[in-house]
Amino acid sequence: MKPADRKLAEGLLFTDHYHLTSAQLLYRHGLHERPVQFDYFFRRYPNYGDHQAGFCVFAGLEWLLDWMEEARAGDAEMELLRARTTSTGERLFDEDFLGWLREEGTFSVVSIDAVLEGRVVHANVPIVVARGPMAMAQILESPLLNYLNYQTLIATKAARIRAAGRDRPLLEFGLRRAPERGASAGTRAALIGGADFSSSVGISHLLGFESKGTHAHSLVQLFIALGEGELGAFRAFAEAYPDDCLLLVDTVDTLESGVPNAIRVFEELQRKGHRPVGIRLDSGDLAYLAIRAAAMLNAAGFPDAAITLSSSLDELAIWQILTQIEEEAPRYGVDPDHLIQRLVYGVGTRLITSGSDNLDGVYKSAAVESDGGWQPLLKVSESPAKTLNPGDKRVWRIYDRRETATVDVLAGATEDVETAAALELHHPVREDASRILTREQISSVEPLLRPTLRDGKRLLEPVPIEEMRERCRRDLARLDPGVRRLVNPHVYHVSLTREIWELKQRLVKEVKPDG
Amino acid sequence: MKPADRKLAEGLLFTDHYHLTSAQLLYRHGLHERPVQFDYFFRRYPNYGDHQAGFCVFAGLEWLLDWMEEARAGDAEMELLRARTTSTGERLFDEDFLGWLREEGTFSVVSIDAVLEGRVVHANVPIVVARGPMAMAQILESPLLNYLNYQTLIATKAARIRAAGRDRPLLEFGLRRAPERGASAGTRAALIGGADFSSSVGISHLLGFESKGTHAHSLVQLFIALGEGELGAFRAFAEAYPDDCLLLVDTVDTLESGVPNAIRVFEELQRKGHRPVGIRLDSGDLAYLAIRAAAMLNAAGFPDAAITLSSSLDELAIWQILTQIEEEAPRYGVDPDHLIQRLVYGVGTRLITSGSDNLDGVYKSAAVESDGGWQPLLKVSESPAKTLNPGDKRVWRIYDRRETATVDVLAGATEDVETAAALELHHPVREDASRILTREQISSVEPLLRPTLRDGKRLLEPVPIEEMRERCRRDLARLDPGVRRLVNPHVYHVSLTREIWELKQRLVKEVKPDG
Repeated sequence: MKPADRKLAEGLLFTDHYHLTSAQLLYRHGLHERPVQFDYFFRRYPNYGDHQAGFCVFAGLEWLLDWMEEARAGDAEMELLRARTTSTGERLFDEDFLGWLREEGTFSVVSIDAVLEGRVVHANVPIVVARGPMAMAQILESPLLNYLNYQTLIATKAARIRAAGRDRPLLEFGLRRAPERGASAGTRAALIGGADFSSSVGISHLLGFESKGTHAHSLVQLFIALGEGELGAFRAFAEAYPDDCLLLVDTVDTLESGVPNAIRVFEELQRKGHRPVGIRLDSGDLAYLAIRAAAMLNAAGFPDAAITLSSSLDELAIWQILTQIEEEAPRYGVDPDHLIQRLVYGVGTRLITSGSDNLDGVYKSAAVESDGGWQPLLKVSESPAKTLNPGDKRVWRIYDRRETATVDVLAGATEDVETAAALELHHPVREDASRILTREQISSVEPLLRPTLRDGKRLLEPVPIEEMRERCRRDLARLDPGVRRLVNPHVYHVSLTREIWELKQRLVKEVKPDG
Repeated sequence: MKPADRKLAEGLLFTDHYHLTSAQLLYRHGLHERPVQFDYFFRRYPNYGDHQAGFCVFAGLEWLLDWMEEARAGDAEMELLRARTTSTGERLFDEDFLGWLREEGTFSVVSIDAVLEGRVVHANVPIVVARGPMAMAQILESPLLNYLNYQTLIATKAARIRAAGRDRPLLEFGLRRAPERGASAGTRAALIGGADFSSSVGISHLLGFESKGTHAHSLVQLFIALGEGELGAFRAFAEAYPDDCLLLVDTVDTLESGVPNAIRVFEELQRKGHRPVGIRLDSGDLAYLAIRAAAMLNAAGFPDAAITLSSSLDELAIWQILTQIEEEAPRYGVDPDHLIQRLVYGVGTRLITSGSDNLDGVYKSAAVESDGGWQPLLKVSESPAKTLNPGDKRVWRIYDRRETATVDVLAGATEDVETAAALELHHPVREDASRILTREQISSVEPLLRPTLRDGKRLLEPVPIEEMRERCRRDLARLDPGVRRLVNPHVYHVSLTREIWELKQRLVKEVKPDG
């Protein structure tokens, strides 16, 4: 796509057709500026085929806000919309509506309360609440979901992989398998969720990071073809990057050629006063090869050289590799803990794609302004779990006496959750499931949604990625280990206050088929 | 991300770190302009968890060529690269190398032969062959894989879904679950592989399509809250779009409210001389609801009103729905064939994400220029299937007497595949598997790789998406039904000529551990 086309594809019209036809309909009925409230939340934790996450890490908001600032109906957008036709060949959008869209069609009229990026978030809890005139709040739906679903999916995966790797360095290597231009967002989200660095050059720099990498197999192949062999390639690399010498040892034969050649080059580097970084294993039985390579590096006097693992890694693969190392390393005279503490993980495909097909985040209207107040809206569903939690809500996270996050509570706008002596909490769907949480059981109560945007003006300064990553780390530490578990996690509690529960029941009864 | 930042992230530096450090190394050794040849191919058909594709549909090339035209080392890129440091704090890239990159660091030196977009392609067959100076050909690796892997993955999925839906209209609805800015590429690929339209406004227009859609649940909710009910919402929609009236009938209750209200509005439209389009079912048991809705629409005199299905569809879900319709429709007095011929499919998540985590496309060096000829390069692997097919190759597709594509053949550059009396074909890995194909068994032989780019100059005019889609349709029709099968497909044959087979065997023997 040409750059000018890309601007048009990714501006205000980076949205779905029906939002614009609905906006025109609302305009004709004088409803387009009626304030409404939409909740963004996801229903199910990402599913990775044979296992599922127990939490998510929120990401993508800052870039959504950037998009909202830029998106508007300019000349190119007007021309495009004027060219749209109905099935009978007439113009789809009339000049009245387009005139309004041109003048008023910006997101400077929208306000947002949102969870901070990097925070741990849970299913069915509003993560973003958008308030604004119906037409623009509706046009926002698809871009908002697009920006938030993907980054949240990837940040979540990064946190899981980092945890599996026992907090050893994690490098994101996914550009080549990333979903085209979605790559930059994926890298950002990976860094928020726990990756230390990325191999992707431009975006790393823009986010304040150095990019990282080793060298290509093709470099070794070329040197072999030129008669200089793998050793020649390694020497050339060490000469060019004596203090960043991480050698890829699997082009010919990892244990017979790659590691011995790397050790020779490391010895040469050491004699010149440089400290070699380590090796990368990119194929074969990574656990076995890591043990054997560690033994060889130890024997040669390089007990601290890093061993970087890559090739189809994800959290389960890493978990299995570490289990295998713990079992097998002693047989080769290698201390498993020492080996694990020198590992570095390079994860590509399964991080940048998450290995799940999506986060099912949705954006649902919860309330409409009526006589100066918020009138709750409901969509019932044949599946009770999909019936919305209606109204103008607040979200509170409650920590127990151990300072562990124990429940996220959806409450009414004026409910006192912070100081009430006791809270009556209802399961969002099951009629019979409620419980009382007393003040004594609570160490602290935290509002999760922060005022973020008011009539298009940002209330929060952008923060560095490291700060978001730190929020993620703090939240993970305050999560029950059962909820953090990679496979078959314990389900985190999300509850409604009595007020929201009763509102929901009343609305479900009121919504009857009409006609 | 801000627009200026996006330009930097997605230009020349939309690549991996190690390509740049490798390029500098090559530069220092005077090897950076040594011509090399890289093959782009994938090893495995996309895996959808419990089933796997038997073919792929190639897409993404045109946009890669656009990127190659734009990507260069400008001021912003230079500034970024100058700021990169080694682990000891020195500059990573020296001025000599950067000066070369600034002057010569464009893809106007690269030539490409490639399969045409929209064509059916197979595992281990080169789809793109890039030739050019080593440094730039290497920097191209990550962006090339990024552009081609994702679009090919999505075009493949679109072709599968369209086949499952028996060629009834397919609408791509995936923007909200798409991987951020990857969305536009996903829409393009879906249209190439078989989607008729997309809901995404900007990109549809740029690709020469109208965008399509119905209306949101929130529109109905709003009208209910305003006391006008679902019927009021439908009437408002019909009034605004009398000739494009497709009504979403599941906000309240599909059969009790949605369909009866839609029928009332259709009757009103008909009286005013308009032809209603149909309804959309977006939740519940889609097969059952489609049958019941069809019966109601038939009884009301709307036997041609379309029934659009959406909600978690993919090729297997559609297949199951059609099977259920065939079994159950007669019990409700509905002719299954007639119902199936009025169905339209709206597919979101599983199309734009493919439901597979990636296409494992790779870009591997196959040959380096030496004394005016191409010297083959090899990377051996512990897994014989991953050992490269070396050298400067040509790719031929052979059609049998039934005009069915029967095998893709990798041949040497000067081999006569077109008129030889017989071809000796070798399995790429198994020593014992070879066969002779005689001229009598062959109806035609087609070269798959077309000269596409010569020293940065495009040789082929861009074609409309429809033409690519037509290529796809033609290729699918010439594919064995067993290979097209959605689940457990027959494996398409890919073979080496005797010349390439012998070259591979010789190189495998030559590559010995060195040191």
